Amino acid sequence: MGVADVSKRILLGRKLRSAQLGETLLPKRIALPVFASDALSSVAYAPDEVFIMLGLAGASAYAFSWKIGIAVALVMSAVIASYRQTVHAYPSGGGDYEVATVNLGQTAGTTVASALLVDYVLTVAVSISSGAQYAAAAIPALLGHEVLLAVVLVLVLMAMNLRGIRESGSFFAVPTYLFMVAILGMAAWGFLQMAHGSLPDVESAKFDVVPKDGMEQPLTTIALLFLLARAFSSGCAALTGVEAISNGVPAFRRPKSRNAATTLLMLGLIAISMMMSVIVLARQMGLKYVDPHDLHRLTAGGRPVEGYQQHAVIAQIARAVFADFSPGFYLVVTVTGVILVLAANTAFNGFPVLGSILAKDGYAPRALGSRGDRLAYSNGIVFLALMAIVLIVAFHAETTRLIQLYIVGVFVSFNLSQLGMIRHWTRHLKTERDPAVRRRMFNSRIINAIGLSFTAVVLVVVLITKFLAGAWITILAMAFFFLLMRGIKRHYDNVALELAADEGDKALPTRVHAIVLVSKLHKPTLRALAFAKASRPNALEGVYVSVDVAETAQLLEEWDQRNTGIPLKVLHSPYREIIKPIVDYATAIRRSNPRGVVAVYIPEYVVGRWWEQLLHNQTALRLKGRLLFTPGVMVISVPYQLRSSQIARQREEREETRVRPGDLRRGRAERDRQIQR
Amino acid sequence: MGVADVSKRILLGRKLRSAQLGETLLPKRIALPVFASDALSSVAYAPDEVFIMLGLAGASAYAFSWKIGIAVALVMSAVIASYRQTVHAYPSGGGDYEVATVNLGQTAGTTVASALLVDYVLTVAVSISSGAQYAAAAIPALLGHEVLLAVVLVLVLMAMNLRGIRESGSFFAVPTYLFMVAILGMAAWGFLQMAHGSLPDVESAKFDVVPKDGMEQPLTTIALLFLLARAFSSGCAALTGVEAISNGVPAFRRPKSRNAATTLLMLGLIAISMMMSVIVLARQMGLKYVDPHDLHRLTAGGRPVEGYQQHAVIAQIARAVFADFSPGFYLVVTVTGVILVLAANTAFNGFPVLGSILAKDGYAPRALGSRGDRLAYSNGIVFLALMAIVLIVAFHAETTRLIQLYIVGVFVSFNLSQLGMIRHWTRHLKTERDPAVRRRMFNSRIINAIGLSFTAVVLVVVLITKFLAGAWITILAMAFFFLLMRGIKRHYDNVALELAADEGDKALPTRVHAIVLVSKLHKPTLRALAFAKASRPNALEGVYVSVDVAETAQLLEEWDQRNTGIPLKVLHSPYREIIKPIVDYATAIRRSNPRGVVAVYIPEYVVGRWWEQLLHNQTALRLKGRLLFTPGVMVISVPYQLRSSQIARQREEREETRVRPGDLRRGRAERDRQIQR
Repeated sequence: MGVADVSKRILLGRKLRSAQLGETLLPKRIALPVFASDALSSVAYAPDEVFIMLGLAGASAYAFSWKIGIAVALVMSAVIASYRQTVHAYPSGGGDYEVATVNLGQTAGTTVASALLVDYVLTVAVSISSGAQYAAAAIPALLGHEVLLAVVLVLVLMAMNLRGIRESGSFFAVPTYLFMVAILGMAAWGFLQMAHGSLPDVESAKFDVVPKDGMEQPLTTIALLFLLARAFSSGCAALTGVEAISNGVPAFRRPKSRNAATTLLMLGLIAISMMMSVIVLARQMGLKYVDPHDLHRLTAGGRPVEGYQQHAVIAQIARAVFADFSPGFYLVVTVTGVILVLAANTAFNGFPVLGSILAKDGYAPRALGSRGDRLAYSNGIVFLALMAIVLIVAFHAETTRLIQLYIVGVFVSFNLSQLGMIRHWTRHLKTERDPAVRRRMFNSRIINAIGLSFTAVVLVVVLITKFLAGAWITILAMAFFFLLMRGIKRHYDNVALELAADEGDKALPTRVHAIVLVSKLHKPTLRALAFAKASRPNALEGVYVSVDVAETAQLLEEWDQRNTGIPLKVLHSPYREIIKPIVDYATAIRRSNPRGVVAVYIPEYVVGRWWEQLLHNQTALRLKGRLLFTPGVMVISVPYQLRSSQIARQREEREETRVRPGDLRRGRAERDRQIQR
Repeated sequence: MGVADVSKRILLGRKLRSAQLGETLLPKRIALPVFASDALSSVAYAPDEVFIMLGLAGASAYAFSWKIGIAVALVMSAVIASYRQTVHAYPSGGGDYEVATVNLGQTAGTTVASALLVDYVLTVAVSISSGAQYAAAAIPALLGHEVLLAVVLVLVLMAMNLRGIRESGSFFAVPTYLFMVAILGMAAWGFLQMAHGSLPDVESAKFDVVPKDGMEQPLTTIALLFLLARAFSSGCAALTGVEAISNGVPAFRRPKSRNAATTLLMLGLIAISMMMSVIVLARQMGLKYVDPHDLHRLTAGGRPVEGYQQHAVIAQIARAVFADFSPGFYLVVTVTGVILVLAANTAFNGFPVLGSILAKDGYAPRALGSRGDRLAYSNGIVFLALMAIVLIVAFHAETTRLIQLYIVGVFVSFNLSQLGMIRHWTRHLKTERDPAVRRRMFNSRIINAIGLSFTAVVLVVVLITKFLAGAWITILAMAFFFLLMRGIKRHYDNVALELAADEGDKALPTRVHAIVLVSKLHKPTLRALAFAKASRPNALEGVYVSVDVAETAQLLEEWDQRNTGIPLKVLHSPYREIIKPIVDYATAIRRSNPRGVVAVYIPEYVVGRWWEQLLHNQTALRLKGRLLFTPGVMVISVPYQLRSSQIARQREEREETRVRPGDLRRGRAERDRQIQR
């Protein structure tokens, strides 16, 4: 960008810019896989949880499985319908956080944000734990090493995201579409066999399930209801991730909102069909599935089964359906594992994006807000990975136990978001006069109200059934993030107050007294002297801290020879201190002329390698730090680039063009690729 | 110091300064304990090593013990006499490093420096290991936990030195004089008993020592010579630390050199009497002492002794001599332990001092050279402690095994230093015409030549007898430090060459184009604008990076209201990047006017708490880093001190008055105390 091109006050949203941005946007067929992996992957563990919960009352309770499935599908439909309203009303991609903040205030927004932060951690932990289970189903050698495998997977994801993975549409499209094909194909093949009456049994069909102590049939109505509520709330894990599209509207092709709404609908239909297929098939094929801690409750001929390895529901179905075609089994299990890892990766994408939105609003360190702050991004990624590893290790990579922590956060944000949407429509209805628009708004409000009522019920159910089982951990973590964000916000607000300009701030300094620090008479010093002279200060002098008689004499001689016309002041430092004499001198100048400014010019040489940094400029660095605390002083670094600084410049440029997690979701992939060329 | 006081070109060495400096200097009675703890403490382990080595050939070889003692005493006398010449010739405190560098060149100097660096580590390891042994002699509960105790002691010393211990004369004087009194008192009491014929036996007198395999009597002449050589070289551990005074001459009261030489003589006399007393008493009291790994070689009635705990030689003597007066025993053992810890502390003092000298000559990172660089000091202290701990753990805190590594380095520097002194006198004799002075120089050269011949023999003996036993580790470590220092020097030399000023460097920039970064219109920005305006650049504009339409519009409005008269340029950044647009813009300005300078003003607010630093200025920091790599740009930080910055300023001031390790030895204690008041 040349100077000439940069006209004063270029406003945002010029045609050229927007068009350039358009090129990077996603068509629906790509957007679906990019945003769907999280939501779809939950079909890999949600049905399992339903069967585990029902199985507490023995195998006969499995009769309720498809009813639970339908209940979950209903909630999902309501939530999807609600989010279709959100993407129209809030196309900016702020998602639940924006909806809650705008309509319900900052407290609600911060609550949603803390729920989302916790959920990102849990998405990684749950998806990777489940993925490790599938890997163990395909490769028996991994059995018993799921924790290690899960930890390694998280570390690999972390490393990839720190390094910057170049995500592309196909990166998501291939495995996601393969996953749909594999699961729906398996289901279709299974239903065909069912229609022929030749549907095989799964491996666990031959077992019986002993009810948990105290759950022997017949259950009281309350006990039964509670059991169904637990199964239902676990099944609601299938809803995690459907909100992703509402955060990604800006990445869609135009018309953005319409395309996003359509994609959301497609996502809902696919997710529901996959989930229902798996549940129905599992039931029909006689699946018996219990908590991995309760394997002894599986019996054969009245005696506990010995040495049985329980595989995930989809793995069991695939093994039976594709009994004569093992590649089919391996395809299903492999793509399921891959899609789970992909789902975990979405958390690595979403975490920094959320961080940057929070930073913009002052709830997170501001450095997170600017793209390209590698350090901030890296810290976020490492933090996410470490928290996920802690959870995986603490819960032995057992999906069942992690699920107990998972759904609370999701439904907290669902609820606040729906409530916010209702407020949104109510507010707009007050001013809107066009009857057609009003009708649409009324309808939207009804849809959101239905959504809210569903998600509110689920949240209550989840809280009741899961609080003691682990949800309390989530709530504690949410409270922690909430308080942290509020604290950061309060700090920024206080600083802003302290910094607010008032009328007294227009006085100009009367006088600039420039001092150039001289350590040797080499190129950097000469450059600093030249720059200082060019700025024409009211007073200009070189300042040298003398710690050695001979060196001082030599420097004075050189100085006189050079005949720069600038006086050199020698500060005496018998104790070999460098920094204190300079700070004292600057303070003294300032004190003698309080309306003036002291400009301290520091010649620096810029090197490129990390170990060179250790050998140079350490004193300059500390001096700058000290001078910043001295009122009335400005610190001027005059850099002199050594040859090796090229290395660092090239490294920085590489860094700038590097992909950041979440870029694709914000429509950045193409542009970055162009830069790299 | 007011501006008025700071006249131009104050030269060094003014009366006032020198007088102030004089107040902090050490009289001989204080200088002796300050510099002697290292040398005197070796009496706590050197005799033990002599007895261990002789004992390899059985108890009969102990007959040689006092002859070995006399040989060591002779070498020590020669070395002390030599160093008395050094303190006269080199009163600046550079010590062996300076002598070797000036007279033998940089390679010799660097060799001495690497030997000293390695020896500092070994001083800590040996002294603390021996100290742990004495502690175990006094407190039986510590037996078997010497390694842990030694590691803890090193960590405590490290923490104290990181924190800054206020050393004073009495800090050293009390324990050192107590140590002299205790050891010499014990010896006097022992000799009195001997004169009365009532000298008791030590606890190990009743044992016999089985010779090591292959060392059965009678030995061949060569085997005997080799045995005596090994005993002698181990005994030379008594010489470690005598060079300390030659590094501390500047801290002595005037006449510095004469006082230092006298103190050196006193040190030598005391050390020799202590060592000889211990050796003679041990021999007379029937001591049997073997390598702790060889305890089975101690026999009673022809059978190996069971369950015997071997205590250090001084501990055994003290227990027997003070058999009827146990406080005497505890006093001896306690002050011996204390003096050993004090000796280790001298290494913590000497290490950073040597580092700063090396830094001044370009052999170490330059930041080490300026006092008050806490980070550099801290790194050195932590490094020293960690290396010592590695050695202690690797050698199980066994003094005997650590001694094998110890003496090489000391004698390498002794040798190079004596050789350097001979060159020194030869050089001066070429020009000196005064016969009296020439005679003194001749004498000095003879003394140094005798010293060299003694230390050369010892070095050869040490290398032959100890190379395989561990000295190779020391030599490897010395080679590592040597190469590292040469590498650092080469780097600095290359940079100096690249930076050397030539005649082309006088051109002044023609034009200063100032840009003030604007993020908000708050006090820091207004101050930066005012400062920039006061510097009267040829062109001045505010620059704002726009990432949000609404915010931009608001800022533009405020800007117009303020009516600063400065144009505001808005840079468009659709991808929320802050740094790249600014760097690009600065580059573009510079390109359009290559003879000009771009002055980038960055408003910064200065906060005081570490967590506040995380929340602020991160982008400014990165931007500064990037701009430094951009040619023709100078970066101006305009700080705005928030209230909390007071905290950091106070912390910095506390930091400045903190004591650094080695201050006392450089004559700084009093002054620091004055500042603290």
